[in-house]
Amino acid sequence: MTGPLKGIRVIDITTNISGPSLTMILADLGAEVIKIERPNTGDDSRMMGPLWEGEGVYYLHINRNKRSIVIDLRTSEGKDLIYDLIKDADVFVENFRYGKASKLGIGYEDLKEVNKGLIYCSLSAYGQEGEKRHKPGYDAIVQADTGIMGINGSEDGEVARAGVSILDQGSAMWGALGIVSALYHRVQSGKGQKVETSLYETGVFWTGYHMLSYMATGIEPKKMGTNHASFAPYGAFATADDSIMIGISNNSLFAKLCKVLSKEEWIEDDRFRTNLNRVENRTVLNDCIESVFKTKSASVWIHELEEGGVPSSIIQKVSSVIKSAQTESTKMLTPVNHPKIKGLNLPRLPFQLSDSPLEIQKSPPLLGEDTISILREKDIDDETISELIEKGVIQVSDQLEYKK
Amino acid sequence: MTGPLKGIRVIDITTNISGPSLTMILADLGAEVIKIERPNTGDDSRMMGPLWEGEGVYYLHINRNKRSIVIDLRTSEGKDLIYDLIKDADVFVENFRYGKASKLGIGYEDLKEVNKGLIYCSLSAYGQEGEKRHKPGYDAIVQADTGIMGINGSEDGEVARAGVSILDQGSAMWGALGIVSALYHRVQSGKGQKVETSLYETGVFWTGYHMLSYMATGIEPKKMGTNHASFAPYGAFATADDSIMIGISNNSLFAKLCKVLSKEEWIEDDRFRTNLNRVENRTVLNDCIESVFKTKSASVWIHELEEGGVPSSIIQKVSSVIKSAQTESTKMLTPVNHPKIKGLNLPRLPFQLSDSPLEIQKSPPLLGEDTISILREKDIDDETISELIEKGVIQVSDQLEYKK
Repeated sequence: MTGPLKGIRVIDITTNISGPSLTMILADLGAEVIKIERPNTGDDSRMMGPLWEGEGVYYLHINRNKRSIVIDLRTSEGKDLIYDLIKDADVFVENFRYGKASKLGIGYEDLKEVNKGLIYCSLSAYGQEGEKRHKPGYDAIVQADTGIMGINGSEDGEVARAGVSILDQGSAMWGALGIVSALYHRVQSGKGQKVETSLYETGVFWTGYHMLSYMATGIEPKKMGTNHASFAPYGAFATADDSIMIGISNNSLFAKLCKVLSKEEWIEDDRFRTNLNRVENRTVLNDCIESVFKTKSASVWIHELEEGGVPSSIIQKVSSVIKSAQTESTKMLTPVNHPKIKGLNLPRLPFQLSDSPLEIQKSPPLLGEDTISILREKDIDDETISELIEKGVIQVSDQLEYKK
Repeated sequence: MTGPLKGIRVIDITTNISGPSLTMILADLGAEVIKIERPNTGDDSRMMGPLWEGEGVYYLHINRNKRSIVIDLRTSEGKDLIYDLIKDADVFVENFRYGKASKLGIGYEDLKEVNKGLIYCSLSAYGQEGEKRHKPGYDAIVQADTGIMGINGSEDGEVARAGVSILDQGSAMWGALGIVSALYHRVQSGKGQKVETSLYETGVFWTGYHMLSYMATGIEPKKMGTNHASFAPYGAFATADDSIMIGISNNSLFAKLCKVLSKEEWIEDDRFRTNLNRVENRTVLNDCIESVFKTKSASVWIHELEEGGVPSSIIQKVSSVIKSAQTESTKMLTPVNHPKIKGLNLPRLPFQLSDSPLEIQKSPPLLGEDTISILREKDIDDETISELIEKGVIQVSDQLEYKK
């Protein structure tokens, strides 16, 4: 690993989406991430459909660059192994329901005793305070509970869950930022600390602009489809074939649009002169524009809009994004060698560092793939390892033959 | 400031949403952020509606904890002031169109000469590579271009822009993570570096799960409303009054739901026995469930579902999220003293650090509020400051009387 967190060791006991997304970010940044999984099934996301050669695609997406060790936390030997791993770790991440980590003996107060400099991160559904902290929560449930769902969807249609997991992955991003910030703080202060984040807090922050709009105006934010409350014209328009998206935020861009549409008379039209006028007369403006757009195909318009300097795009399918020239130019998809899946490509993190580049070096591990190598690094002898396997305290991957 | 980035100085020349959101994160983390604005109008977001006592609410949301200095970049004296500020800065952030920073003499190569240890961040619409790098882009345009819009909305309705700015703010989060990681790297290596992120890369990463699903199955991802391709029942259901959202990801939760609905016979029903069965028979299952939900009101069901341990929520309005007990318990809204707006509350970042807590200490600055204090700190004498004001190289806030 060449990333900035090279030399940092993370013990990761998270499951499902949010926690593993968080530790994947740390792994891509160069940290060594040891993923502790429960016997037999491992992380639930391994079986979340669709499967690809038997591997859940969500698991594949968010577990590269990690090592997997299977430990039965319910045994005292298992717990001792965890404490042993914590001793020389830098970061611990958990996403249990509220209170469960402490019950298991791996709460912050417990692990601080084992390792004073530890950075301990809790990622939960509703946070560590308030009446809802005990509640289970998934991305969509918390989208509903933080107002996101209520303002997402077409104007006359049903509400919708934002189509990508903005709370699972958003909270993962905030947690990772908190951890790296705490690592930076530790260099200055020598102190570890607790990092807390949650899907709920992330959701409230996503709606920040809408909350402030409501506080300023008293007007309840609503679903706007592809439009934007503050700007017009701004949204999707039908053409002779596929829809296209345009976004006009000021008078200069509106003039450019009018030129492309050969409707320069609109520039000085009282109904459309300023953004405020255009927002007021959005319906008639959108009708006027669409009647022109309908005369040619989407690809012709996109070409003309680009030439004219008007922000625009066709509404891409996911399959087209995979193959698009811009995805290729930005090298967003990285080939990864996987023992079962040929041609696996995983999206890299969406930022780059020139002097400590991020890399995807290791495919998402099979369950227990690294159990033995991790324990050997801790100087646990092979006889003890054999005993622990026989007792069911640890497991090794089915794919690997255990050799003494 | 008590945050982990205390002592870090950021020079911020960004405008609109994504860039200022990025530097707001650094400011909340305790960095000193100097926001450079153009004369007369300043950051465009100051005038993005709705306005609150004349201040754009988006500006208010993402510019707290910063200081504002007005410099005319088109003058050589103005440029010299920038170089002077860069000399003892740690971080520089820009979100110009591709190539413009270099044309202005403030590209990475230029500023590296002034300050070898500088961390230089470029946040753009389409990244620094590829044919689209020259294109302007807004959140919604790039949502269309990265496949997000195409999978967002109700099943039979129109596509929709995700109702919150997941690319503007998402790219801000990745950029901030890149910068803090680069600061950590600099402590080890002594080296500055370039950090690059974009709305496009952020959008491709958001769709990662859907891209992998397509690569695994060849099935084009589609709009699912409030449902989730991998799970059932999972979505919004009508009751006797308001809709409610439930999310069932495994058999144990399905059994709990059946108990709450007094339909325990469904647990062993062949159509619903496993998640795979339930996904296959989603339509009939959803109909069965909705017919029961319609017998009582949303508030009664939410109470019963919570008692029964079933993940659920009503679909909150933004105005209700502001007042909700959980928002209050998690202290997500922070009171801020503002010279014009009484009762301003701003959402804090969605994570907390126990030993280096994040704070909101300063209201979003008026244009040029800190021009003089910043220049005085650079030991520029008052006579020179007066001259620069007269020449129009710098401006001070209308609100502040300039005293020699």
